[in-house]
Amino acid sequence: MTTEVELPVNRRERKKLATRAALEQAALRLFAEKGYEQTTVEEIAEAADVAVRTFFRYFSSKQHILFGDVGHDRVTRLRTELAARPHGEPILASVRTVLDAMDLVDPADQEQIMIRLRLMERQPSLLPMYLRLNNELREIVTEFVAARSGLDPRLDPYPLMVASAIASCWDIALHIWAGTDGRRSLRALRREVFDTLTAGLGEPRRGIAGGRINRQADNPAAPPR
Amino acid sequence: MTTEVELPVNRRERKKLATRAALEQAALRLFAEKGYEQTTVEEIAEAADVAVRTFFRYFSSKQHILFGDVGHDRVTRLRTELAARPHGEPILASVRTVLDAMDLVDPADQEQIMIRLRLMERQPSLLPMYLRLNNELREIVTEFVAARSGLDPRLDPYPLMVASAIASCWDIALHIWAGTDGRRSLRALRREVFDTLTAGLGEPRRGIAGGRINRQADNPAAPPR
Repeated sequence: MTTEVELPVNRRERKKLATRAALEQAALRLFAEKGYEQTTVEEIAEAADVAVRTFFRYFSSKQHILFGDVGHDRVTRLRTELAARPHGEPILASVRTVLDAMDLVDPADQEQIMIRLRLMERQPSLLPMYLRLNNELREIVTEFVAARSGLDPRLDPYPLMVASAIASCWDIALHIWAGTDGRRSLRALRREVFDTLTAGLGEPRRGIAGGRINRQADNPAAPPR
Repeated sequence: MTTEVELPVNRRERKKLATRAALEQAALRLFAEKGYEQTTVEEIAEAADVAVRTFFRYFSSKQHILFGDVGHDRVTRLRTELAARPHGEPILASVRTVLDAMDLVDPADQEQIMIRLRLMERQPSLLPMYLRLNNELREIVTEFVAARSGLDPRLDPYPLMVASAIASCWDIALHIWAGTDGRRSLRALRREVFDTLTAGLGEPRRGIAGGRINRQADNPAAPPR
């Protein structure tokens, strides 16, 4: 597992990344100056010196430029990093390691996120997109905990409890970090919330009524339950 | 504090409640039979034997008939019941008492909620409304904890941690209750999740860096911090 981002090798890929970054920066600047609702896709394209159809080659909408990519990349990476943890490692230890690896520590990345959080505070219409992203993150952790514990997330609350704690953890750390203008460390906040909200979780209680996935079909030698 | 709902005294109020209930029942039946997307407001009004304009006197949209009222009533009641708890009572004890008072125990109410949860499982387009409602609930608990603890919810994670645990608590209890077709007790599930997710919360740590609301303006005799 690595926390490095692979750099694209050829000129064409590098140029695409530069265009995407130019569009993002133009959009964020205009949103901050004019307000999110008042900014049009045409204005973003013009400010980034590209055609409107080029905008739509990179982003499906204004909302997408704001949350889509940052969010989608992180959510995808969460899934990959969780899947890479060794089987048999305690579940909360796996989650803790992955959260540590995924903390935003680069000041440039932090600045991008802070701009987005500030926009969201001023623009309640952006909340549903953020809530949906947070819910997607929760679904990924739920799937991971279910797969590793053998607990059915429809029948046993454990996977959803872990996943809700993790989703809250990122959300709360970001809120307080923005509220304190970045004076409190994002990582320290995230760890504090993680420790508090997972204090009662321990390891899955495998004996819980009705919660086990019946694995007899996979393993005919298993004793009947 | 009471958990009873006041019955309307006059005939006109009773008639309004009956019309609203008829619209709700017609809508839920049609959503289940035809699917949510395929059902029109016109069909709901016709099935309830009222005019379309009568529908819009009670509900602003199809989504509203599904979540708006149930959710809004409960969220409003949560605010009222929390505010009614005595000052000085430990915060988590207040929350625990209110959750106990607000558990859905009436089989008829439970049936209505189960129908809505089943619809949401089949109809992902309903998720944003549900997420928004859950977020509203979280905001109410955040305000309560902030007011009682004196902690600024923008600077100290404690109010959001309590509120996130409570919002998760209802959400997870409902999920598992629906997943087990109501075989597990909604109250027992809610209490189990509450105990687990609040295990690390304790009482607010008033000494936490930067988190106190500065009350010197209210109380000039307070020592400087």
